[in-house]
Order: sequence, then C-alpha cells, then structure tokens
Amino acid sequence: MNKLYSSLLALTISTTLNAQEPLTAAQSDPKILGWMQGFPPAANRTVSLFDGSFFEFPAIRYSVCHMREFFPTKVVRSADQGNYSFKQKLDAKIGNITFIPLGKDEPVSIETSLAETYADGFIVLHKGKVVYERYFGELDPEGTHAVMSVSKTFTGTLGALLLAEGVLDENKLVKDYVPELANSAFGDATIRQVLDMTTSLDYSEDYADPKADVWVFSAAGNPVPLPADYKGPKNYYEFLQTVHKAGSHGQAFGYKTINTDAMGWIISKVTGKSIPDLLSERIWQPIGAHHDGYYQIDRSGIAFAGGGFNANLRDLAMFGEMIRNNGYFNKKQVLPKAVIDDIRKGGRQEDFAKAGYTNLKNWSYRNMWWVAHNEDGAFSARGVHGQAIYIDPAAEMVLVRLASHHTASNTANDPYSLPAYQAIADYLKKK
Amino acid sequence: MNKLYSSLLALTISTTLNAQEPLTAAQSDPKILGWMQGFPPAANRTVSLFDGSFFEFPAIRYSVCHMREFFPTKVVRSADQGNYSFKQKLDAKIGNITFIPLGKDEPVSIETSLAETYADGFIVLHKGKVVYERYFGELDPEGTHAVMSVSKTFTGTLGALLLAEGVLDENKLVKDYVPELANSAFGDATIRQVLDMTTSLDYSEDYADPKADVWVFSAAGNPVPLPADYKGPKNYYEFLQTVHKAGSHGQAFGYKTINTDAMGWIISKVTGKSIPDLLSERIWQPIGAHHDGYYQIDRSGIAFAGGGFNANLRDLAMFGEMIRNNGYFNKKQVLPKAVIDDIRKGGRQEDFAKAGYTNLKNWSYRNMWWVAHNEDGAFSARGVHGQAIYIDPAAEMVLVRLASHHTASNTANDPYSLPAYQAIADYLKKK
Repeated sequence: MNKLYSSLLALTISTTLNAQEPLTAAQSDPKILGWMQGFPPAANRTVSLFDGSFFEFPAIRYSVCHMREFFPTKVVRSADQGNYSFKQKLDAKIGNITFIPLGKDEPVSIETSLAETYADGFIVLHKGKVVYERYFGELDPEGTHAVMSVSKTFTGTLGALLLAEGVLDENKLVKDYVPELANSAFGDATIRQVLDMTTSLDYSEDYADPKADVWVFSAAGNPVPLPADYKGPKNYYEFLQTVHKAGSHGQAFGYKTINTDAMGWIISKVTGKSIPDLLSERIWQPIGAHHDGYYQIDRSGIAFAGGGFNANLRDLAMFGEMIRNNGYFNKKQVLPKAVIDDIRKGGRQEDFAKAGYTNLKNWSYRNMWWVAHNEDGAFSARGVHGQAIYIDPAAEMVLVRLASHHTASNTANDPYSLPAYQAIADYLKKK
Repeated sequence: MNKLYSSLLALTISTTLNAQEPLTAAQSDPKILGWMQGFPPAANRTVSLFDGSFFEFPAIRYSVCHMREFFPTKVVRSADQGNYSFKQKLDAKIGNITFIPLGKDEPVSIETSLAETYADGFIVLHKGKVVYERYFGELDPEGTHAVMSVSKTFTGTLGALLLAEGVLDENKLVKDYVPELANSAFGDATIRQVLDMTTSLDYSEDYADPKADVWVFSAAGNPVPLPADYKGPKNYYEFLQTVHKAGSHGQAFGYKTINTDAMGWIISKVTGKSIPDLLSERIWQPIGAHHDGYYQIDRSGIAFAGGGFNANLRDLAMFGEMIRNNGYFNKKQVLPKAVIDDIRKGGRQEDFAKAGYTNLKNWSYRNMWWVAHNEDGAFSARGVHGQAIYIDPAAEMVLVRLASHHTASNTANDPYSLPAYQAIADYLKKK
C-alpha cells in the first residue's frame, strides 16, 4: 500500500485517538478558531480531507456542518411544495432545568449539558410545538449537519416500512434478495437479524486498531483515485461480499455499521431505488422537509447507508415528530402505524445485554432504533460524537441534538445526555 | 508527474477530442444507456471521475445532471420562504416553429433543434409566463444541471453589482484589491478589463493541447490527493498568481476562464464572502429560487467561479427574467437597473471582433455577458456543450437551454441555436 493511500485510512469514520486535554465547547467554536475563513484560508486553518485534519477535534466541529465540501454526495430532495412549519411555544426555562449527570453528584443545567456535549444544534418539541431551540458554532437554522449513525435509523425505518408493506419478509435470508451476498457472512442471516444487528460477523469496528476491518471498509467506500497496486474492494458492496461469519447469527446484539450497508443493498435491490432517492420519496418529501439532505457516496455512487446522511435540525425534528405520532404528520399517514409499533416494541433485551453497554441498561435495538424500555417508553436514534433523535411518548416530547463532541463514542457524552433528556421530559409532563 | 496524477489531467473541463461518429440525442439518452443504474451499476456503465469517462460523450449526458456526485461542492442556498412560481401560458406550437440553421438551406423545427443540440432542458418565457418547457434524458423539473461558463455571467453580474454600489471601482487595478496578484498578469489590469476579459494573458485554454495551461489550472483546482513530488499550485488562487502577461491589457477580447476566477477572488476579498454565499444572498434567495444550487470547489474550499455552478432550469429562468425586468423580480428590486443598463450597453465591438467568432458577428462581451447588438437588443450567458440563458428584450422573451452536446465548443451548436432563438422571438413578437 503506497504512502498516499495509507494516509487515506484516517478518513470517513475517523475519531480522536490522540486527544490532548480537549478545548471546551466555547474554546473550540469553529467561528472563533477560524477554520476555512479568509480568501484563501490560512494553511493552518485549512481543513483537509487528505491530511487527516478533517475529522480530528477541533476541526471536526467545522467539518460536520460542511461534509459536502469534502466528499461527493447524493441529494435527498426535500419537499418543493407543502413544506411543514412548526408552531412555536418557546420556554426559556428549559435551559435552567437541572439534572445530575451519570456518575456525578452535583446537578448541572441543560444549558451546561449543551456545552459539555459540544452541541451544535438542539431542538425540543412538546406536543408537536417547538419549546426550545438552540444553535452553536458552525450550525445555523438553515444548515445541515452530519448525523453519523443516526443514518442507520433511516435505513432501518425504510426496511421496517418494506416489511410492513410485504415487499420484504423478515424471515427470508439475505441471499434471497441479494445473491451476491450468498457466500458472505450475510448470506444466511435473516432480514430481521440484519435489521436488529444480531448477525455474527468477523468484523472489527475498533477505530483504535489501525488493522481493524473498518479501515478496509472505509477505504473501499472512499471515492479517491486508487493506487495501481490496490487489490481490495472498490466500493461498499464489494467489501460486504468479503465479510465472514464469526459464529451463529441471532445470538447477540453486535453493533456493526456494515449491517446497515447490507440492509441498504437489500432495500435498493427490492425497490430499484437508491437509499437517498427512497428516503426522499417515502419520508423527506411527505413530511414536508425544507432542506435537501444528502449522503456521502462511494466511487460507484452507492450511498453510505450506515453513516453518511446529513440533514437539517428542524427537518430531523419533523421526522421524529412523525414517528411519535405513529406515522401521521403533515396531513398524511407517512408510515403505517405498524412500523412504529414494531420499533417501540423493541428487540430482545437479553441479546442487547451481551453487548455490555453500561449506560444503556435494559435497552434493546430494533429496526436500527435504540429502545430504552423505560417507564416513558423512550426510544432513540444515536450517532457518534453526540448525534441523537430522542422520542419520549409519555412526555409527548421529541428532541434532536446535533453535536461535535471531541470523542466519538457516545459513552463520552451519555452521562450529560440521557439524564438531561429525562429531566426535560419530566418537566414537560407537568406542563 | 506520476501516472495517477497524469490521469487526472483529463478532468474538470475535459472535452470530446476523439469523438467517433457521435450517437444522436435519442441514442445517447442516459436513461437508455443506463449509466449508474443498478445496485451496483455494471462496470461498463459506471461513470468515474478517475478514468476520464466522467466528461466524455456520451457519459457526459449523465454527469452534467450529477456533478455533486463526483466532486466536493458548496451550496448556493435557495429561498426558504417566498419562493417564486411562474404563471404558465403553454403554447405547443412553439415546437413547430421553423428556422434555417446557419450554413444550411432547409428549414428545421424547434423540436428538431432540441435534438440536434442535445438539449436536456429548455424553457421559454414570454412576458414572464412559461410558454414552452421541455425536459429530456437525465434532467427533470426538480433537478440541477452544470451550467459551465454560464457561471461566469453570475460572477460578472455580482461584479457589476459591486461596481454599481461603489464597493468596487472599475478603474482601479486588481492589485489594489488583491495584493497577492500584484506580480501576476492580473496585477495591473483594471477591474473593467477583467470583467470584460480584455486582459492579455499568457495562458492557453486549448483543450486539444495536453500541454495547455488550462490543465495546470484544472489540476490546481482538483481536490484529490497530491502526489509527493507535486510542485504546482494547489488551489485556484495559487494558480492565478503564476499567470504572466502576454502583451498589453485593454487591446482585445480574449475569452479566458481565469479572468472570472480572478474576479471571484476580487469579489470575495471586498465582500468577505465566497461566491456561492454572495450569489445566494444577493440573487438566489431574493429571486425566490426553489432549489439549492452549488459550485464545485477546490481543496481550499474556493468555488470555481469560472465554470463550477450547477442550478435548476426554472431557477435559471427566474434569474433571466429578473435581468429582463431591469433587476425587479419577485416583488423586489434585486439588482439596480444601472447594472442591467451597463450589461445591455455591451463592450467594445472592435475588441470583440479581434477574437474571430464567426457565428457572433458584431457581438461584444460586457460584465461576462455576451451582447448581440442586434435589432432586438439580445444578450446571453453561454457555456460549453450548449448551456445558454438568452434574453430578447424586444420580444419580451427569456429562454434557458441546458444541454450535453458531444462537442464542447458552442461553435458546434450555435447554427441550430441562435437562429432558433430568433425564430421564437419573432413568433412571440406577433402574439
């Protein structure tokens, strides 16, 4: 592998492996640090895809709002007519609600939690009205932000929709829909196992290990010129065909992004549409989204279904509110209620428990949603660096946070997130 | 220069140098040829940026509607509120209007001219109403299309706007605004000379010559990994600083793209805004554009002001109608009338004549618009492969054509374009 190419390995899903004492949210504000400002930007303020700076903290705080400026992308068209507009009932007191972060003793405010989690955007809906909305750093109300693994939830929801419509059968095998995957680990997995990530894959997503499979996956999906001696997979689908089984499917939850990309392939095979086109047609246009979203794509034009979606904060909130309302939104039944029922039911908690998420006790994973199984019946879409759509049916609350935390794993921000969301829900329940 | 890198030289502004007998418009319809269709697309139907297929005919017929899927891009935000909607007064007879193509004897119809020019989209406004609107191949009413050098007209119009507002002075020198260009050919050119392309530059834009300067310019702007031994300019602005004079400025019209990129730099320096952001703020949002446009950008995030804009057909027609109405559109004065007066006045015809455009006798170039100086007072924005915005004030007509002709130079399509436009104008004058 030549030098040029190895330098590309730090791309796409990279993380902050060698963080020094990180700057605070205020200190790392991209507008203050001046990334890509000036004509031309100064060399030490230029964010580059090719020197690895692009996804390193603090430059990542700029990049997450500008992904299309680094990658080829495919549009998710918004609604041209019939855009939905939220009613507002703003309540500034929400910023002063306090909660005790996981593992701490002293209460902090929601306002503080936004800084602690490096929030770029935060919106709370109560009974469908905007009660709290904040923007920080590089994000503005008209902008888009990378949603990272919240992308999985869109792919999973489309999969669940196709199940509800009978286009897919959850008991059928992946190879029944995608013969190209017959000899891979996915071949004899059921659609249900892929959707709930209970496949057993010989695949490491440990970003700290430079030899982890995720880097080969990432390289396969990276639309850059290939060195002459490159022998690896040249797009996401070629990579998926190389994955081997590590044991038996259906035994445990194993959070691996490539399940979602396999699901994306299945969906495109049976619908004849790319994930961006299908998402636009079935969800983004019907909900009345205002802003085009987009996906990163590989050299074959295949969207990164497991992590490549970028969208506007309010549009994401519209999606969340549609889900909370059992699929009904913007004067139409966007998704059948059965889809949301199936998501809320959750997956098998015993499968989930084997994955050892200490902050997510009793949770499960269903249709690429994270289900809390708490008293409020909450469920969530989650992406690294702090992306979240959080739906609390008991509190009639939908909340979306977009963020650029210095640490990829949500383990780093959950202590300031999950109890904060519950505190807001408890406050709204009393209103 | 290594092999990987030299293969990149065929990018960005490439053209069809070795065309065999070209397919017809119907034969080369991208949907029929199946480019990028299927999951994954077949190898021989995959359009790639890196093997040169991307901009070769017939694949170019696909690519022009999907530029963001090959390049990093920067958005030109459309209006979120107050979108303009055209009234329609469709007249199918326009397709049957006949005209005699330049250099031919037999009349052909407008319908035929659309096929002859490989039109992807064609819209005609009369008195501000849509009277004719067609889509072919890969373009649909919601889509975007590369406008090629019509991009120059947007940069030039913004430049003229800043002159009218006194932000720029047409008699000042480029180096007064961009000190970095002081030692380049542009340094002692006036703003007026850059806007009208009467600079004298030692720069070849002959795509047929593999050693032409345009390939170095193109490589500088190409946001791909650079080989270790690369010593050239790394972005558009670095390239502009290397250009030498070939004689005295102000003597003759010389159509060279880099004038527009120099103008883009000047505009960004004095406004503190990128061309995409300024275009959005001053024109795209005020006219009520429905669809986000976008620019190709280089590794420093600099938009390709001379040729990188992509936009929706109707949105382009809104821009044209705003110009025809002396800057007033969508219930507001978007541009001062003085800007349009100055465009319509045109440049010096004797300067233009020296450039030897046989199809454009008596024309001139002003503020990066092509001015016909004909009885109707027509003027136009033009881009290779057949892109055009054509405004005929006497006929109260605005026309936009987006196309993917197999040959880059408009010399190839003008015989079926210019008399066609005049024939439609003459028809509309009698209505």
